[in-house]
Amino acid sequence: MGREGEHWALFGEWNATLANLGGAAALLGWDRETAMPRGGAESRAAQMGTLSALLHRELVRPDAGGAIEELAANADLDAESRAMLWWAKRERDRAVRIPEGLVRELSEARSRAVSAWSEARPKGDVASYVLGLRPVVALRRRYAEAIGGDGELYDALLDEYEPGARIATVEPLLNKLADRIRPLVEPAADASPDPLPAATWPPEAQVALARELAEMVGFDLDRGAVAQSAHPFTTAFGDGDVRFTTRVDEANPVSNIRAVLHEAGHALYEQGLPSRYAQTPLHDAPSLGAHESQSLFWENHVGGTDGFWTFLAPALERHFPEAMRRVSAGTIAAAARRVRPSLIRVEADEVTYNLHIVLRFRLELAMMRGELGVEDLPEAFDDGLEGLLGVRAPRPADGVMQDVHWPEGLIGYFPTYTLGHLYAAQLGRAAHAELGSISDAARSGSLAEVLAFLRERVHSFGRLQRTDELMRQATGVDLGPDAFVEHLRARYLPG
Amino acid sequence: MGREGEHWALFGEWNATLANLGGAAALLGWDRETAMPRGGAESRAAQMGTLSALLHRELVRPDAGGAIEELAANADLDAESRAMLWWAKRERDRAVRIPEGLVRELSEARSRAVSAWSEARPKGDVASYVLGLRPVVALRRRYAEAIGGDGELYDALLDEYEPGARIATVEPLLNKLADRIRPLVEPAADASPDPLPAATWPPEAQVALARELAEMVGFDLDRGAVAQSAHPFTTAFGDGDVRFTTRVDEANPVSNIRAVLHEAGHALYEQGLPSRYAQTPLHDAPSLGAHESQSLFWENHVGGTDGFWTFLAPALERHFPEAMRRVSAGTIAAAARRVRPSLIRVEADEVTYNLHIVLRFRLELAMMRGELGVEDLPEAFDDGLEGLLGVRAPRPADGVMQDVHWPEGLIGYFPTYTLGHLYAAQLGRAAHAELGSISDAARSGSLAEVLAFLRERVHSFGRLQRTDELMRQATGVDLGPDAFVEHLRARYLPG
Repeated sequence: MGREGEHWALFGEWNATLANLGGAAALLGWDRETAMPRGGAESRAAQMGTLSALLHRELVRPDAGGAIEELAANADLDAESRAMLWWAKRERDRAVRIPEGLVRELSEARSRAVSAWSEARPKGDVASYVLGLRPVVALRRRYAEAIGGDGELYDALLDEYEPGARIATVEPLLNKLADRIRPLVEPAADASPDPLPAATWPPEAQVALARELAEMVGFDLDRGAVAQSAHPFTTAFGDGDVRFTTRVDEANPVSNIRAVLHEAGHALYEQGLPSRYAQTPLHDAPSLGAHESQSLFWENHVGGTDGFWTFLAPALERHFPEAMRRVSAGTIAAAARRVRPSLIRVEADEVTYNLHIVLRFRLELAMMRGELGVEDLPEAFDDGLEGLLGVRAPRPADGVMQDVHWPEGLIGYFPTYTLGHLYAAQLGRAAHAELGSISDAARSGSLAEVLAFLRERVHSFGRLQRTDELMRQATGVDLGPDAFVEHLRARYLPG
Repeated sequence: MGREGEHWALFGEWNATLANLGGAAALLGWDRETAMPRGGAESRAAQMGTLSALLHRELVRPDAGGAIEELAANADLDAESRAMLWWAKRERDRAVRIPEGLVRELSEARSRAVSAWSEARPKGDVASYVLGLRPVVALRRRYAEAIGGDGELYDALLDEYEPGARIATVEPLLNKLADRIRPLVEPAADASPDPLPAATWPPEAQVALARELAEMVGFDLDRGAVAQSAHPFTTAFGDGDVRFTTRVDEANPVSNIRAVLHEAGHALYEQGLPSRYAQTPLHDAPSLGAHESQSLFWENHVGGTDGFWTFLAPALERHFPEAMRRVSAGTIAAAARRVRPSLIRVEADEVTYNLHIVLRFRLELAMMRGELGVEDLPEAFDDGLEGLLGVRAPRPADGVMQDVHWPEGLIGYFPTYTLGHLYAAQLGRAAHAELGSISDAARSGSLAEVLAFLRERVHSFGRLQRTDELMRQATGVDLGPDAFVEHLRARYLPG
């Protein structure tokens, strides 16, 4: 084996160790949300702390840095090798700048803040929430300082979740989007159908439907699993093991169905990544915005169509014979399209959702700029929501305490949801151009061709391109609000 | 902080890291058996390999060895500190002798052998089983050679599971036990009650009963959980998170009930370890034999009594109203005491069970001595079973391929089951002397006092003593077959 061969071998072994440690760490998180008894919280936090420290230690291994540098110096590399080295260097360079002590401190502060949040939330105890959050914000500022870069502190965090994104582009985009959405809210609400009539949707039947729906959209249960948790999420432990959760509301079947479509969208992306990229930096999405484009494509651009509900009707009648005697699939579809300014982001409709994100972006940016103290955050949150949506939280739990993101240290993460909405709408338009009406495809049960479109345009590339290149290639256009706003107008405004 | 303080701090941090990595590794195993989709096998094996390598690397850290040595040199240590250092030194010294390459090789060979076993077993493909097992046996021999010691290779493996045990004591004990059990088999079988009449025991009701029974014996579900798997097992992820699995046979409720009592026995031991020992080497049982004494105490010395079944009757009637119209709790209790020489160890009755162990002990000892080749193992197994129990496997899957232990590398492990039987019987006698009839205690629902007895005599010590000291102190006698053989005579022989 020549010198270059040795470097590639070291690089491969290093990537495999990182993937294995990452998979183990992901399982600690999955189990915490799906199976862990209450008493396991403390030891779980300690286990997660140890694994993040070991991951960090492995990431900064000097010999890996040397190998990357020497390999990248070769001018004749193919595109895959070049992309692998680019992502590896990016991750490693960021990690090298963060001292292991800060990694541990942040991990512990996050665990404590999340515990404080989950205890404080049901009691509406904003003071305890603030107390837990303050060190997390301070440590995320230190973290961003350590990473440095040419922009503001917030840019360093944004770039973690959405490589290449900067305040300079995201802020004007979000402001423009807010300006175009706000005038739609009232007419969309006025044109809204009635909510779903009362009925009971047994939880066991909803769980059975969740598995069936997952398979209907192409999720492979031999290489994945579906479970339940308080907040739906998706995680991948390796090429052949991708899992997601859903949640079940006995009074309403839509929450589960939307959650399954959303999470299956993430999970289909993970299952569609090329197996040959397993255990390399290319076995992932190039950004969270790209990932979210897939979940929102399935949730809104498939699940929001009449055709989808026609297609789902037989399964609904089979699983809910009782409730479906009083409700039709069409009524559920209509109720699922109801628009109302509301307090809770995760329950918001497609029209108002991104205004919730605009608020969070503005607040987290102000915190990172030092313009907003954590103690002033709860009121700023309530004021901001009122300004954007005209509603005000009656209880603190429904305001700033509704999200776990900030206690989790996820600052700079929220805007990726909006980028996902915009990309999903652009992909929806491209899919329509390629396949004709998605609603018709769904109605005739031809979801396999929708999946094949996404596989071909998005999943099969892994991280070979950055998000902007990948999406330009997939949709033919640059990132912007037009497709999304037109989609809202077409779906929610009266004819 | 003085020099000694620094050593204790390093020692504590090292133990915590080992406990956290061990907990994460245990979760990878738990999830594999309870939740993982088929497609996850390959990445799971790789994750487990990485974690064992990191655990090994942490275990052999030179600074930890130095700290242990200097701390142990202090003549004024209290008993707890002395025991902590003794266990830590023991684990570390063993690990230091095993090269990391051998750890990895063994981990990979085990994964492959277990995969080969699980594919070969349903097909009865003994050749593939042998092919997978051969490298595991060879690597376990290299492993035992690396550990060295003053005895035979097998002693080094036996000592891993049962610290202090040696061929020189275990072999005569097992031979004597076999000689005393064999004459009991025929009369016990002749005196056996009828098997259970046919009925259906719905799986969901059995799972609900499993949780209820776990709580009835004192298992704390806030600090633990119950799941299902093909083979029942117990695992602990930390002080507040102990879980076990059961299995459910729709045609017979006894399999689940025995499994719950057995695994809850292990789990109660783990939940009863002192919290102040968490993340130290004392937070464990001193041996597998000691651990098994607890599972077998609950399974046989509580679960085998008439009083227990009287106590359980109302729950059985509530969960199985249909089946219990045709069967009484007394009939189930009697059927559960049925004795028959049979092929499958895990389904064997209490009288014949240890003859299965004697066979495995003799075979694995012969393999480690180089007197029996892996290719000759399947026939030697069938011949041995016929010699000891008078039955011969009609299909290879029912012979040597029934156990996963050897493909898993667990050579030297089987005898601990028998030690558990002997200790459990000795504890049963001591409990009777202290509390009166266990059957009466169970009948009156006074299982809390049985648990309190085990907590006081066994659980609360953790690893403060070695097994022989702990059990002598708990039972007043040395390890021997008398209590067990008398228990068999009393329960299974006519009047």
